[in-house]
Amino acid sequence: MKPNERSLAEGILYTDMYQITMAHLYYRLGLHEKRAQFDHFFRSYPDYGAHQAGYCINAGLEWLLDWMEQARFGEPEIDFLRQQTGQTGARLFSEDFLQWLRKDGHFGGLTLRAIPEGRVVHPNVPLTAVQGPLAMAQILETPLLNMLNYPTLIATRAARISQAGRGQLLLEFGMRRGQERGVNAGARAALIGGADFTSNVGVSDVLGYPPKGTHAHSMVQLFMALGEGELEAFRAYADIYPDDCLLLVDTINTLESGLPNAIQVFTELRRKGHKPVGIRLDSGDLAYLAAQAAKMLNDAGFPDVSIVLSNQLDEMTILQILAQIREEAHRVGLDRDHLIRRLVYGVGTNLITSAGDAALDGVYKLVAVQDDQNDWIPAIKISENPVKTPNPGHKNVWRLYDERGLATADLLTLDDEDPRQMEPLRLHHPVDANVRRVLPQASITAVEPLLATVWQEGRRPEAPSLEAIREQRRADLARLDTGVRRLINPHVYHVSLSPQLWQLKQALIAEFKA
Amino acid sequence: MKPNERSLAEGILYTDMYQITMAHLYYRLGLHEKRAQFDHFFRSYPDYGAHQAGYCINAGLEWLLDWMEQARFGEPEIDFLRQQTGQTGARLFSEDFLQWLRKDGHFGGLTLRAIPEGRVVHPNVPLTAVQGPLAMAQILETPLLNMLNYPTLIATRAARISQAGRGQLLLEFGMRRGQERGVNAGARAALIGGADFTSNVGVSDVLGYPPKGTHAHSMVQLFMALGEGELEAFRAYADIYPDDCLLLVDTINTLESGLPNAIQVFTELRRKGHKPVGIRLDSGDLAYLAAQAAKMLNDAGFPDVSIVLSNQLDEMTILQILAQIREEAHRVGLDRDHLIRRLVYGVGTNLITSAGDAALDGVYKLVAVQDDQNDWIPAIKISENPVKTPNPGHKNVWRLYDERGLATADLLTLDDEDPRQMEPLRLHHPVDANVRRVLPQASITAVEPLLATVWQEGRRPEAPSLEAIREQRRADLARLDTGVRRLINPHVYHVSLSPQLWQLKQALIAEFKA
Repeated sequence: MKPNERSLAEGILYTDMYQITMAHLYYRLGLHEKRAQFDHFFRSYPDYGAHQAGYCINAGLEWLLDWMEQARFGEPEIDFLRQQTGQTGARLFSEDFLQWLRKDGHFGGLTLRAIPEGRVVHPNVPLTAVQGPLAMAQILETPLLNMLNYPTLIATRAARISQAGRGQLLLEFGMRRGQERGVNAGARAALIGGADFTSNVGVSDVLGYPPKGTHAHSMVQLFMALGEGELEAFRAYADIYPDDCLLLVDTINTLESGLPNAIQVFTELRRKGHKPVGIRLDSGDLAYLAAQAAKMLNDAGFPDVSIVLSNQLDEMTILQILAQIREEAHRVGLDRDHLIRRLVYGVGTNLITSAGDAALDGVYKLVAVQDDQNDWIPAIKISENPVKTPNPGHKNVWRLYDERGLATADLLTLDDEDPRQMEPLRLHHPVDANVRRVLPQASITAVEPLLATVWQEGRRPEAPSLEAIREQRRADLARLDTGVRRLINPHVYHVSLSPQLWQLKQALIAEFKA
Repeated sequence: MKPNERSLAEGILYTDMYQITMAHLYYRLGLHEKRAQFDHFFRSYPDYGAHQAGYCINAGLEWLLDWMEQARFGEPEIDFLRQQTGQTGARLFSEDFLQWLRKDGHFGGLTLRAIPEGRVVHPNVPLTAVQGPLAMAQILETPLLNMLNYPTLIATRAARISQAGRGQLLLEFGMRRGQERGVNAGARAALIGGADFTSNVGVSDVLGYPPKGTHAHSMVQLFMALGEGELEAFRAYADIYPDDCLLLVDTINTLESGLPNAIQVFTELRRKGHKPVGIRLDSGDLAYLAAQAAKMLNDAGFPDVSIVLSNQLDEMTILQILAQIREEAHRVGLDRDHLIRRLVYGVGTNLITSAGDAALDGVYKLVAVQDDQNDWIPAIKISENPVKTPNPGHKNVWRLYDERGLATADLLTLDDEDPRQMEPLRLHHPVDANVRRVLPQASITAVEPLLATVWQEGRRPEAPSLEAIREQRRADLARLDTGVRRLINPHVYHVSLSPQLWQLKQALIAEFKA
């Protein structure tokens, strides 16, 4: 794509055709400025196979709002729509609609409440509630889902991988295997969710993070083709980066060539007063090689040098590597905890693509609309699968914390309800009428509203820094029950409805079916 | 991201940090302008589980070259690199290197030969051969892989889904679930591989295709919330789009509400002289509902109205739907072939994310470098897994066609070899010394070189149109053995080495191991 094409492809036409087809219909019926509310939520946690997630990390909001600030219909966009014709060759969109789009086709009339980035989130909880003129709220559906689904998917995966690695340094390396330009949003989401750095230089620049990376096999190969060897390649690297020397040791043979050569170069560096940084293992049995490498490095007097592991890692392979190390470290005379604490993880494909479940099933559903008297009418869509019937009306979301200070449930209420005033709290299962929890207020240590206004008719509060978002994620994860946080077969976290919301939903379903 | 940030994040810093770290090392050693060749290829077909692909469709090249034209180091990029510091706080990159990047840090010195977009391609065949100054060829690695891996993955999936649907109209609907900005490249790749249209408006504009889409459940919901019903919603749609009326019939109940209402509206349209276009089914048992819908539409005198199927489709669900229709159509008195020919497929998540295998394992390997006498030296990287040892040196790629005019093998040769001069042709298995094929020239009806120069020191031949690329894909698929094209357990297509290339590879492996 040429730069001028990019501005077209990523501007306000960055949406699905049917949003514009519907907006046109609303315009022609005089409904386009009727106020409506759409809720954005996901229906189920990512499910990678044996290990479905038990929580998600919310991400993507800031870049969505950046996009919304810029997106508007200029002449090139209007021209393209003007060219669209139907089966008979007649124009699809009326000129008055196009002129309305040209003038009012922006997101300045909308208000968004959202759960902030970095927060732990759960299925069927509104993550974003969009209110405003129907036509523009409809056009926003696709870009909103596009810019929030994927980052939340990746932030979630990064949190899990970081958790598997017990919080050791985690590097995002996935640019080459990710989905074209989406890797920038993926890298940011990975940093929100649990990665500490990314190899992606451009996005690091934008985010104010230093990008990370040392050298590839090709550097060693080049020296070999030129008649030298791995040792000369390592020496060259150490000469140029004496205080940042991290060497990839598996180009030829990890234990017989790479490690002895790295240790020789490290020894030379130390003699000159420099401190070597580490080695990277990118193939083979990483648990075995990490232990052998640790032993060789210890024996040579480098017990603090990092061991970076890469090559198709994800949370399950990391769990497996650590289990193997715990079992076998003592056999080679190593302190297993010391070894685990020197590990660093470089994770590429499986993180940036969320391998195993490459999409979050986020949706955007009409939940209320104003009638001609400007009264809000709750809207519902009945599904044959009850779990897919969305919760109607204007809602608030509250997180309840138990005596331990841990999150025990997310409660959806109508927006004039306050769970702090309910005694006892009755929590309805969203679908099953027979499942309820009753919590006395005394058992609740905190009730936290989760939605905040992030866009009011085009105005935005200052966005939190990426560091603050990361800190929020750490705090939320620490307040999650360990059973919910578990990587395999997690406990199901409760997302409940207040009695009033439950009754409204049941009444609408009954009315609908009648 | 703000617009100014986007130009930073997607400019020449759109690469992995280690590419720049290595380029700096090459600069400091005076190797940065040494000519090198890197081959780009993938190692294995996408494997979605039960049904590994037997071919891929090459895609992505044109947008990569567009990016290469624009990418250069300006002051903001140099500033960012200047700020990068190592462990001791000292600058990571020397100022002379940065000034060299500022001046010569672009891709104008490179030459790329590549297999054109839309062609059927196979593992271990160079899809792109990059030749030129080492430092810039190294920096290109990540963006090249990023911009070619994902499109090839998606074009391949689109070809398979189109094939499962027997070439019926295929619509790409995945924008909301795809990977943020990557969906534009994904939509283009889907069009290359087999989709006929996309719902993505912006990218359709850029590609000169009409975007496709009608309405969502939310339109029907809106009418219901406002006290009207599905019938009124359909009527409103038919009023505004009388010649383009395609109705989504599953908001309430497909057979009891949606279809009767659609048929009523279609009847009204017909009375006014318009031809209704179709219905869309987005939930439930699509095979069963398609048959029932066809019957109801036939009975009402609409035997030509399309039936669009959507909802988590991929090639396997489409195969299953068609199998079920073939088995059951006659039971409801339908001509199965007629029903199958009126189906249209809308495919979203599974296409845009390549669900089941969300990444293509494309790599970029140093295969040759010039020595001080400007002689080319082949380079190799030995892997413990022989399949992962790349083929060294400058190569050509030829496709051999058999007596039936079908592709029978791709042959890699050294670049001064011409298989048209070899009698007989000896094809070596790339790894197993004991597997060879001998083909007399008389059994070969055509020998086609696959690589073309697509970038010569910044100059590009005119790119083929998207229609020409799609036509190329159709032609290549038609010349593929049906066993190779099969969706489940395909035959393995032969990728072979010439005797000279085989010998070079063996000699380098032996030398390396000595």
